Amino acid sequence: MTQEIHGTVADGFETVREEFATFVARERPDYEGQLCAYVHGRKVVDLWAGDGADGGSLYGVFSSTKGAAHLVAALLVQDGTLELDRKVTYYWPEFGAEGKNGLTLRDLIAHRAGLIGLDAGFTAQELTDDRAVAERLADQRPFWRPGTAFGYHALVIGALTGEVVRRATGRTLQEVYEERVRAPYGLDFFLGLPESLEIRYRSVQPMAPTAQQQAVLDAAPSGPHTLASIAFNEHVPNPGSLADYANSRAVRAKGPASAGGVAAARGLAGMYAAAISEMDGRPPLLKPDTVAEVGQIHSVGYDLVARAHKSFGLGFQATADMWHPFLGAGAFGHSGAGGSQAFADPRSGLAYGYTRRRMAFPGGAAPENDRLARAAHTAALAMG
Amino acid sequence: MTQEIHGTVADGFETVREEFATFVARERPDYEGQLCAYVHGRKVVDLWAGDGADGGSLYGVFSSTKGAAHLVAALLVQDGTLELDRKVTYYWPEFGAEGKNGLTLRDLIAHRAGLIGLDAGFTAQELTDDRAVAERLADQRPFWRPGTAFGYHALVIGALTGEVVRRATGRTLQEVYEERVRAPYGLDFFLGLPESLEIRYRSVQPMAPTAQQQAVLDAAPSGPHTLASIAFNEHVPNPGSLADYANSRAVRAKGPASAGGVAAARGLAGMYAAAISEMDGRPPLLKPDTVAEVGQIHSVGYDLVARAHKSFGLGFQATADMWHPFLGAGAFGHSGAGGSQAFADPRSGLAYGYTRRRMAFPGGAAPENDRLARAAHTAALAMG
Amino acid sequence: MTQEIHGTVADGFETVREEFATFVARERPDYEGQLCAYVHGRKVVDLWAGDGADGGSLYGVFSSTKGAAHLVAALLVQDGTLELDRKVTYYWPEFGAEGKNGLTLRDLIAHRAGLIGLDAGFTAQELTDDRAVAERLADQRPFWRPGTAFGYHALVIGALTGEVVRRATGRTLQEVYEERVRAPYGLDFFLGLPESLEIRYRSVQPMAPTAQQQAVLDAAPSGPHTLASIAFNEHVPNPGSLADYANSRAVRAKGPASAGGVAAARGLAGMYAAAISEMDGRPPLLKPDTVAEVGQIHSVGYDLVARAHKSFGLGFQATADMWHPFLGAGAFGHSGAGGSQAFADPRSGLAYGYTRRRMAFPGGAAPENDRLARAAHTAALAMG
Repeated sequence: MTQEIHGTVADGFETVREEFATFVARERPDYEGQLCAYVHGRKVVDLWAGDGADGGSLYGVFSSTKGAAHLVAALLVQDGTLELDRKVTYYWPEFGAEGKNGLTLRDLIAHRAGLIGLDAGFTAQELTDDRAVAERLADQRPFWRPGTAFGYHALVIGALTGEVVRRATGRTLQEVYEERVRAPYGLDFFLGLPESLEIRYRSVQPMAPTAQQQAVLDAAPSGPHTLASIAFNEHVPNPGSLADYANSRAVRAKGPASAGGVAAARGLAGMYAAAISEMDGRPPLLKPDTVAEVGQIHSVGYDLVARAHKSFGLGFQATADMWHPFLGAGAFGHSGAGGSQAFADPRSGLAYGYTRRRMAFPGGAAPENDRLARAAHTAALAMG
Repeated sequence: MTQEIHGTVADGFETVREEFATFVARERPDYEGQLCAYVHGRKVVDLWAGDGADGGSLYGVFSSTKGAAHLVAALLVQDGTLELDRKVTYYWPEFGAEGKNGLTLRDLIAHRAGLIGLDAGFTAQELTDDRAVAERLADQRPFWRPGTAFGYHALVIGALTGEVVRRATGRTLQEVYEERVRAPYGLDFFLGLPESLEIRYRSVQPMAPTAQQQAVLDAAPSGPHTLASIAFNEHVPNPGSLADYANSRAVRAKGPASAGGVAAARGLAGMYAAAISEMDGRPPLLKPDTVAEVGQIHSVGYDLVARAHKSFGLGFQATADMWHPFLGAGAFGHSGAGGSQAFADPRSGLAYGYTRRRMAFPGGAAPENDRLARAAHTAALAMG
Repeated sequence: MTQEIHGTVADGFETVREEFATFVARERPDYEGQLCAYVHGRKVVDLWAGDGADGGSLYGVFSSTKGAAHLVAALLVQDGTLELDRKVTYYWPEFGAEGKNGLTLRDLIAHRAGLIGLDAGFTAQELTDDRAVAERLADQRPFWRPGTAFGYHALVIGALTGEVVRRATGRTLQEVYEERVRAPYGLDFFLGLPESLEIRYRSVQPMAPTAQQQAVLDAAPSGPHTLASIAFNEHVPNPGSLADYANSRAVRAKGPASAGGVAAARGLAGMYAAAISEMDGRPPLLKPDTVAEVGQIHSVGYDLVARAHKSFGLGFQATADMWHPFLGAGAFGHSGAGGSQAFADPRSGLAYGYTRRRMAFPGGAAPENDRLARAAHTAALAMG
């Protein structure tokens, strides 16, 4: 039995609905997910499946959280509160240990610090607490020579950025996000989910790979002390699963800025729409110069953690190079381990958000984003 | 009916003729192209097909033009007129806008500036005029963080280099080229084709892909605002085709230094022969140190515009790494969108030029260059 | 008839023996090789085949030699005798010629200098003598722009490092190695094989590719003046083969630090065990900070000589990224053209050494190392 597709699309976005329906029809019967898009600040896609009649659920969005974290960084750079070419130690003196003295904020945010985890690993408790993560990382030797390479700081980039925010402003990144981004727009994208909204949270479901997919996963190189293991803190005794992480109330309550966010697709897309477009009578959060700077490619090529080609702007993925080659230069966003993805494409005015409940094979942005984002982009361009 | 192969080869270069004949026999019956090679300044290959009995036609050579442009740059570096490690702003103060203040001439010429095009695009008129292109680019923010990556400045590198030449010498790059390179050797390789020679110009024919090739072209990622689109100025309303560009008299008249050159294979090969070899009683244009420096690899790896592995020296392609792995270290040259290619291989003394009328699939140097250049190189080595 | 597997494994390492036996059974009947491993300084694997009853032979290990050379460098850095961020010219003023003035010792050791060989090539005599190699390279222009790329300095990195050692200490790298590393542990890993031990040397046998393998080798791009040819000194008249190099007494006598070493697997593994573990009542040769620094990835991505992805620490290969993705971050070692490989994996305490007599297809570490090293690593982890 095919799942019903709920929600609406604006005129001209019918193909997005069709792509979503085609995809859902091929998924497992218990599929649950949401798709939302804005163009120039106007909502043009608001679809969901398997999420009841109102589409009001919230999902763990893992690394899509990093988009919210680095929108905060972008705002503070825009304000002049943070200066990208200052050394990190200007804000955070303890950071200079173990040869990290010369590193700039720009390098740090662009995944160049080599500070992807701890030799000794983090406790589960520490991973709920950005400040504890940052404190421990200050003493860590980088895992590669700073300046020679980059790699995905999967579980810690938000804590590192957050500590700089805290030192510079006296407030947590989460507080700044809530005040300057989430609350003004009423976004369903939380870094710290209030207890009262827990009822809307739908727990992450583990990946359900086919036999063939499982074989691919099993064949992937792995080891308990690889850079990837350290980056995902899998080198500790009894590491928790990613699903367990998102499904922990302690995580959701604090909203760690690397991967602890909770959102609906509307919130994801809404945040990126607010970043680049006039919305709700407010000017865009980011000025054109800031948009250009955060989307400017800063790290591109072989990612030492992912062992594959990746592209980053300032804390954001360079979505056009890394995921969707049809997007315009300067598109910026982030995907999440569960399958979620969100981005802004400033040249078309498109803001896109997608979330799903069950973790998608093979990890990272779910493959369905390719066709969904392309359809949305094509329709956005046709709007002119 | 197989096309006749015209022209001559020196003793020992019979295999080059055979390769050319084999290739032409498989091409469309209307194939038209020329192949020329020198070794240590002596012409050893002079072949053509479909170009009448004398082989005197001139073709649009697109980016092979960049070789002429950067031979001028090399000469001025050799003179001491240009210094590679000076900042571009030393020569061209207005260039420093939008975070480009620190960029050196070396970085600029090595496709590292990130200044591949304009957010707003160029008019067709501007693209005929290197000075207009340069003036507009001075105000453009780079498309990636300077120093972190490189990408092919397809339509603009010649204008950027040219503006530095103009500021440093008071003359256009085209004037310097004509005076110091083209005229002394009587080369059929023009940056600015005199009206009187128009009769020899054979208009570029558009690519004629097979159905299978068309499918490959259609499947390639594309979008109207990608880095590649911007680099090829395809993000403007009604962008012209590359063929139309070369076929415009306005372009040919001015000879924009990125892609507006017109040449015969004899001119292409002759220019590279003059660069590295004694010829016509003249010493090589470039001294060994200059040859080594322009061919030294400056940018290598993932090209953000091409989204593929590329290798550049100082304005020239590092032909051995980028195209022909059998060539010697330090081989330098350039290919063009129509299918043309030209290079010097200093370690064997080979200078090579190829041009064809119809644009070749899939774009860039035509595939036939692989076997033609290999045959020429093997024969050159055997000459000793 | 299947070859007999000699030697012993500790409890828990039976799978290593099984993997070795499985491999040997599929090899040519004249296969001859050795496998040895330590965990936390205790020998746990000591196997051989085709090497008589005692396994006492010594083999040419080619570039595995570089591991010994750079253990010396690591010790001198640890002592403070060498400082990685000093310019090479601080130790070796003549090195500054031809634009190499700004290069640091760190860059030099990390294969970033672009000084892979000589335009004119080395004589066979010079290649036996690190000091002669270094002297000639001092005058060579780099083959790429220093700082923009890296490439494997196959035949010369040991001479370059060695010259810095000699200038800083007044003694040859080989002397320091003998005194501080080889002799104290009685290691069967020689940089300079005494005449009296020649009786134990088994000459390198040339590769014996199958027809299919030969086709692969023939199809590989090659030319007499490529970067790879220059790096392997194949651009001179009558270049000797690698096998001939190792089989020359003149080479073995001097033990050039790039590729002239002679070893048994016990010596290879023993050296890496001594580097990271307490052994024979002695503390580890390298302190944890030094271990972390030499294994820290310094050069990663496209190797201009190999024309493939490679990863280097400080003179060592970054074995986890370059060869065995299951190893821990910071694993460091080196492989050799004959098929040998040796490394330390500090996070599991594993030290590994393998050598074989006949050169393995396709060159570099022999493919059998993949399964052998994985089995040893898995067993080492299980030891806890």
